[in-house]
Amino acid sequence: MSKSAFAAAFIFATTGLAFAGPDHDDLPAEVQARHGLMANYALNLGVLGDMAKGKTDYNAEVAGVAAANLAAFANTDQSLLWPADTDTMSIEGTRALPKIWDDRADFDAKEADMAKAAEMVASVAGTDLAALQGAMGGVGGACGACHKLYREPK
Amino acid sequence: MSKSAFAAAFIFATTGLAFAGPDHDDLPAEVQARHGLMANYALNLGVLGDMAKGKTDYNAEVAGVAAANLAAFANTDQSLLWPADTDTMSIEGTRALPKIWDDRADFDAKEADMAKAAEMVASVAGTDLAALQGAMGGVGGACGACHKLYREPK
Repeated sequence: MSKSAFAAAFIFATTGLAFAGPDHDDLPAEVQARHGLMANYALNLGVLGDMAKGKTDYNAEVAGVAAANLAAFANTDQSLLWPADTDTMSIEGTRALPKIWDDRADFDAKEADMAKAAEMVASVAGTDLAALQGAMGGVGGACGACHKLYREPK
Repeated sequence: MSKSAFAAAFIFATTGLAFAGPDHDDLPAEVQARHGLMANYALNLGVLGDMAKGKTDYNAEVAGVAAANLAAFANTDQSLLWPADTDTMSIEGTRALPKIWDDRADFDAKEADMAKAAEMVASVAGTDLAALQGAMGGVGGACGACHKLYREPK
């Protein structure tokens, strides 16, 4: 084993727990990461949605940060998030329907639609309120299009 | 209210629940997003760490995806994640120590160190195993440096 390999092994052996997700340690790491991605969509969409709805004052800087984050999260490669046997029929604690794996190409296309819609929001969120409002519908549509087909209702 | 504002309001009113994180709905959205970010660090670091340690075979493509994701997550703007009164003294369900808010500039610097270390991994992860191993120590160090000071031990 090379010196750098040993150093890496040592660091991982001693800090392994530091990388474990803080919650739901019983769920596979991929499922925790899925939920984590949705939680980050939710936070940034909440900030943007509250402004679009007039629940909070429009703030160009904050809108720009939230929208850039949303676009960055939506553009990550999500291929590692959906391993086999992590659907509603296989494990507790997920709402991911087996249909995701049956219609994977369509599911991936809907993910790509979300990324595009988020980029559209990011391109205008810092301009003004009307521009933000005009772009939010696309994201709402992208969220709904995927959830309707591929997420178990509560 | 403009037509687009109304459309946005309608979409958010009807799909609001779709944006809620799937877990811990009792925790503030920012805390859920923090945990979600860590869960995504954990997944990608797990993939990379298992390869670096020889627990799984090195795969240049998968390593490249995981490292690019890690760098993307680490480079998001994290300013929205740490609102006041979301520390261990204020709420249950977090390990974020009050010291974060006391030493915010240092905390932010450690976040920036993590982003830099993740970019270093992303720049070499797809090259070969030795290059990946050589870069992983930097990330492990960045994780530990922040957790040691700012995260409550289990």
